Amino acid sequence: MLKMKITKPTFVIDASICKNNIHRMAKKAQNNKVHFRPHFKTHQSAEIAGWFRNEGVGTITVSSLEMAKYFACYGWKDILVAFPVNILEIESINQLALEIKLSLTVESDNSVLTLLSGLKHGVDLYIKIDTGYHRTGIDYSNFNEIEKILRLIKQTKKLEFIGFLAHSGHTYQSKNVDEIQSIYQDTVVKLNQLKLKFKNEFPGLILSVGDTPSCSIIENFDGVDEIRPGNFVFFDVMQYQLGSCDFNDIGVSVVCPVVAKHAERNEIVIYGGAVHLSRENLISKNGQDYFGLVSLFKGDKWTKPLTDTYVKSLSQEHGIIKTTEKVFSTIEIGSLLAVIPVHSCLAADLARDYKSLTGSVIHKFKC
Amino acid sequence: MLKMKITKPTFVIDASICKNNIHRMAKKAQNNKVHFRPHFKTHQSAEIAGWFRNEGVGTITVSSLEMAKYFACYGWKDILVAFPVNILEIESINQLALEIKLSLTVESDNSVLTLLSGLKHGVDLYIKIDTGYHRTGIDYSNFNEIEKILRLIKQTKKLEFIGFLAHSGHTYQSKNVDEIQSIYQDTVVKLNQLKLKFKNEFPGLILSVGDTPSCSIIENFDGVDEIRPGNFVFFDVMQYQLGSCDFNDIGVSVVCPVVAKHAERNEIVIYGGAVHLSRENLISKNGQDYFGLVSLFKGDKWTKPLTDTYVKSLSQEHGIIKTTEKVFSTIEIGSLLAVIPVHSCLAADLARDYKSLTGSVIHKFKC
Repeated sequence: MLKMKITKPTFVIDASICKNNIHRMAKKAQNNKVHFRPHFKTHQSAEIAGWFRNEGVGTITVSSLEMAKYFACYGWKDILVAFPVNILEIESINQLALEIKLSLTVESDNSVLTLLSGLKHGVDLYIKIDTGYHRTGIDYSNFNEIEKILRLIKQTKKLEFIGFLAHSGHTYQSKNVDEIQSIYQDTVVKLNQLKLKFKNEFPGLILSVGDTPSCSIIENFDGVDEIRPGNFVFFDVMQYQLGSCDFNDIGVSVVCPVVAKHAERNEIVIYGGAVHLSRENLISKNGQDYFGLVSLFKGDKWTKPLTDTYVKSLSQEHGIIKTTEKVFSTIEIGSLLAVIPVHSCLAADLARDYKSLTGSVIHKFKC
Repeated sequence: MLKMKITKPTFVIDASICKNNIHRMAKKAQNNKVHFRPHFKTHQSAEIAGWFRNEGVGTITVSSLEMAKYFACYGWKDILVAFPVNILEIESINQLALEIKLSLTVESDNSVLTLLSGLKHGVDLYIKIDTGYHRTGIDYSNFNEIEKILRLIKQTKKLEFIGFLAHSGHTYQSKNVDEIQSIYQDTVVKLNQLKLKFKNEFPGLILSVGDTPSCSIIENFDGVDEIRPGNFVFFDVMQYQLGSCDFNDIGVSVVCPVVAKHAERNEIVIYGGAVHLSRENLISKNGQDYFGLVSLFKGDKWTKPLTDTYVKSLSQEHGIIKTTEKVFSTIEIGSLLAVIPVHSCLAADLARDYKSLTGSVIHKFKC
């Protein structure tokens, strides 16, 4: 295999790992007979979308209308925008609703009313439910508010009620896998109370859940109808730390040139900063903020993370790696290091495009 | 003035504030008879670069060779890359050195040796000095290491030694303006020790300093020859909190649509997340992380920040604003709020392009 030439920070994808991640999740959904509607905000790439299509995926989730437009251009015909509907973009909504089967997310009767006044074509509607994350959504026990929305939907032919959608993002604060499982179970119980309440009136209503920690750890999806994980295609240090994946399941790294070394403090300076990795951080066991793990880049793969080595701080273009004396002595100025990002969605968003391990360019959405 | 139509997160620039910021700094440099080499990594825009040219600026600083290439395309002929030289990009260096007066930054004899082996044309060289920030650079007292580099430079005609360059980024950790002044004075003293040591051998050597907090607060630049601030063109909440500027000097905001409201916790959800603002945060007086201040957007300007209102958390596309009951009641779904970013350099980097307050597009570098 021809080793590629990297001279500046480069978002590198191990396609075979990512394809395995996709295959595993698609298979799990299939075995559980739940609908698979993966979130494409992580990769934002029509080429990677094709890897999902090869696993039989035809329905997707995105987080903005612009992303929906991009994937619609590449032939995706059934797209959910899992973000509280932005009524200022009614023109884009009307345009997309004409071209594809568009699903939107609402969480107030107010938004539904404004949507109705501007909508020219039919759309599908999910109601966003707050199951404990407290970011967005109607509290799962607030039947009154939910009823208000359902009454509005019933009055029009433009809106088709699909079901209740939750994102239990509080799994990201879990200390261990048991806690993730318990949050997931709690979500399923809460959503099923809603289903029970409304299923007579809307017999086809579905329950849709999303977060990658839950979808990666849970094996039995009884009680839900649809899963929408996104990050699992790449995974990252955050997921690894949560227990959602093994290190070997992480399919991406940001490969960065070493530009300086400081022996007196065992620090290595890389060309690779906040504009390549994002400032998403984690806290290490010693209470130190860190912005990524560090591996050697071998041209056609990266190694296990280097012992006691991490990205300690980031400026706009600089990354400072703290390491041990032993590791320090083996790294040269001009070497390439692979930084495994804390949050692959944000690092991927920052990249202009990606490179595969064979050196080919993987194009992505540029917004 | 025609109010512009904004429907999604938009990086908006108040050109008149930014032009004032540029004028003030250019004038200060002129009054002090120091050379002005502003850092263009903050705005990354040929159009904004023109505002500097109107103030007589002809020499600039950037943080990557790609940025240098971009500005070279727009007629900038004297560019310093203030980043430890990345020897893997020797081809770009040679290409640029042929076209413009290119200055590079080094901090080890190792880098100078490799540079020499690949260099086809002459370049100017700054030696990066660590005056206490401990990110990069040779310790100011390490005469031995500095001598090694100077000996190498003397042996070749390809390298012209310009002087010593420092970035006292530890001003960003200052608790007050006095501390910034004291760090600045310390930097000047340290650099002048070097000048004293080497001025007989290199009579033309200059001392170059950079950070925006120092350059904004200090009025008397005796003892330095060149200043390279960058952020001051836009300023941001971080600079405002440090005391580098007034709120009215902040020339940028990210205008975001309101998509949901949660009365039970006085929280407002905006379309505007980590991919628009970056995850750079500050700690409020109450010990809470926050990612921006929040103003009303009036179509052709933004207001003073709303009382006790701040961006509390960010997901990829969501921003959660915490506010008071009083402010909460005045904000509607579909309104536009102007988020004043914590760190304008990173928020600007995330934008595809900018909009002026008159609605015109201000193009920027896309890397």
